[in-house]
Amino acid sequence: MVLPFDILEYHERLKATKQRMEEKGIEVLLITDPANMNYLSGYDAWSFYVHQMLVVIIDEPQPLWIGRFQDTNGAKVTTWIYDENVIGYPDYYVQSAVYHPMDFIADILKQIGQGNRNVGVEMDNYYFSAMAYERLKQHLPNAAFKDASALVNGVRIIKSDQEIEYMRRAARIAEQAMVKGVESICIGGRECDTAAEIYYQMVKGTPEYGGDYPSIVPLLPSGENTSTPHLTWTERAFLEGDAVIVELAGCYKRYHVPLARTVSVGQPSEQLQSITPIVVEGLQDVLSSVKPGMTCGEMEEVWRNSIKKHGIEKESRLGYSVGLNYPPDWGEHTASIRMGDSTVLQPNMTFHLIPGLWFDNYGIEISETFRVTETGAELFTQYPQDLIVRDPLNISPSDKIS
Amino acid sequence: MVLPFDILEYHERLKATKQRMEEKGIEVLLITDPANMNYLSGYDAWSFYVHQMLVVIIDEPQPLWIGRFQDTNGAKVTTWIYDENVIGYPDYYVQSAVYHPMDFIADILKQIGQGNRNVGVEMDNYYFSAMAYERLKQHLPNAAFKDASALVNGVRIIKSDQEIEYMRRAARIAEQAMVKGVESICIGGRECDTAAEIYYQMVKGTPEYGGDYPSIVPLLPSGENTSTPHLTWTERAFLEGDAVIVELAGCYKRYHVPLARTVSVGQPSEQLQSITPIVVEGLQDVLSSVKPGMTCGEMEEVWRNSIKKHGIEKESRLGYSVGLNYPPDWGEHTASIRMGDSTVLQPNMTFHLIPGLWFDNYGIEISETFRVTETGAELFTQYPQDLIVRDPLNISPSDKIS
Repeated sequence: MVLPFDILEYHERLKATKQRMEEKGIEVLLITDPANMNYLSGYDAWSFYVHQMLVVIIDEPQPLWIGRFQDTNGAKVTTWIYDENVIGYPDYYVQSAVYHPMDFIADILKQIGQGNRNVGVEMDNYYFSAMAYERLKQHLPNAAFKDASALVNGVRIIKSDQEIEYMRRAARIAEQAMVKGVESICIGGRECDTAAEIYYQMVKGTPEYGGDYPSIVPLLPSGENTSTPHLTWTERAFLEGDAVIVELAGCYKRYHVPLARTVSVGQPSEQLQSITPIVVEGLQDVLSSVKPGMTCGEMEEVWRNSIKKHGIEKESRLGYSVGLNYPPDWGEHTASIRMGDSTVLQPNMTFHLIPGLWFDNYGIEISETFRVTETGAELFTQYPQDLIVRDPLNISPSDKIS
Repeated sequence: MVLPFDILEYHERLKATKQRMEEKGIEVLLITDPANMNYLSGYDAWSFYVHQMLVVIIDEPQPLWIGRFQDTNGAKVTTWIYDENVIGYPDYYVQSAVYHPMDFIADILKQIGQGNRNVGVEMDNYYFSAMAYERLKQHLPNAAFKDASALVNGVRIIKSDQEIEYMRRAARIAEQAMVKGVESICIGGRECDTAAEIYYQMVKGTPEYGGDYPSIVPLLPSGENTSTPHLTWTERAFLEGDAVIVELAGCYKRYHVPLARTVSVGQPSEQLQSITPIVVEGLQDVLSSVKPGMTCGEMEEVWRNSIKKHGIEKESRLGYSVGLNYPPDWGEHTASIRMGDSTVLQPNMTFHLIPGLWFDNYGIEISETFRVTETGAELFTQYPQDLIVRDPLNISPSDKIS
């Protein structure tokens, strides 16, 4: 298998990671976040549902991959690290009430003389459970544990040109998925029918670039369910006058470009008609203010002032840094666009700006993913920044049944 | 929104959960596994990428849902619990280096007089991080924490008739996804093209039943990558003579029926031809041995003896209990079909029996999902139990480009 990045890029990433380890006094870093594992080693497989990790040792040139034995072939195939640094634990450790993979991993660390060092762990990561930490502490009594949450994520926040190129490919896929998804929305069509169209486009990709699975499924609430942002599709059939929120991401080699739009099946409600220009104005105000040196908190302030003129407030964050990830989230867990976030914008940072508003019985999402350039913001996708109105006379469900 | 189960079924589930709590001396159970949250409350949304939980208090009739404020509408819409038991935390708790949702949740628990009780937590669950546990312990110094891993999962292991009905619908979706996926495999077709066809079918479902997203994406290694089980699709184009492993699940209202087959593009290799009847015989030997009262360990023994005749050994487990779940796993994390597992089979237990074999440069998977009946095993899907051979003369990639 061909690595998605030049070997030198992986070496640079590892170097930057070790620099941060040194700053934090970490000698051995146990990486359990699959995106961080991928970022440093190339490892790419749906094996994160069992315990596994990449071990970065400050004074060793190569990381170790430790995971389930049956996944070791995958680690050899998808990473740049030497085969002898790929270690598998026997299958009886998997989802057992007796054995735990961290017991095995702790033994390996002791055997290679790392059991009494300063060990960094990603404390608030889906793939480092409370039990994993307890077992490590129990079996490595002489190690000093330090929180390394988001240590590697912090290295990831500025993208390389190759990463930006992958996001541009993801953007082509996002556009095409949005176009076909919106086209499929019609009276009597079901949410699941539209989700199927979107998935087909997302996964097939283009003739040049195959699509990858996004870390979040397309979110597709319709009708009153647009009042809540994270409902997935159901069998509900669209009615005339429904609003439908479509939030999706194109994904290429695990790099995401999210895109959200709100669609009206026929004549939009008065509420939607009056809120739309406020959201679009706020979105454009933020985008035109972006420049290196500004903070994420200042971006939020631009938005807040823009919507305040219309008597609107937003409780939740306005967006987040985005790029490489695995389920259950495509957000990077670094910078958030919200009050008080002091992250300073730099060229090749990438954000999903999603000023969603959710009220008691309806909601709206119109979003953009952008790159910070030397002078401003560059959008990844080209899709009308507006409420999308589907003419119910021109569409019928019978066209769509396949 | 209509609940997928009768309210009485939710009450039964809660009662069985409280019985187990009592046996373990747990007074307050903090449920963070999204499948367990769904099982007891109906909650269904892609919001598990932020901290959230269902709180079951032994002497209170209703659970509490505590999560992100913007998801509270979703909790009100999808659950049977009263609106006043749905509590949201402000957005500044989300993915922050300063605030943690468990601080908020601990305060709520203290306010309602639960801060000094025996508190059960799901220690080895993706959605209960090491940090979540540390914060809870810090803010609830008078609570006694107990491991409640798989407590609710244990209740889930025997399915109700309604759950079985949902799995039957998932099975129709799995069959159709496998048929269309296999049909799309051709010389020059890409792995991503086949994955797109599968996804389309899985999500669209049938005219009667819309599909839901499976908790694992279709796994689709081809060529030498069949030697490793968890690689996802790539842009690789199929070549004549390739083997392709297709592992997928139909999903309906979060209930899964997995199905795996191995496909040969044209004439299969001699290796594949000779291993296939051994796997099929072993699979059928196990299926015909299944009956209530047998243990999971005994199922594995039947398989081991069957393949031993041919000089084959399998290192990894043979299958697992399956049903309701959320990413990243469709397995239930209760019984495994492997040596030493003492789970006793009972009617309406459901398993994915997947005797996959992976060698240095190829592999094979032919699986079945079955229900334990009063007397034996009933398969969910009807699909030939064999190596599927695609005739490369009858198929061309140009037919498939849409």
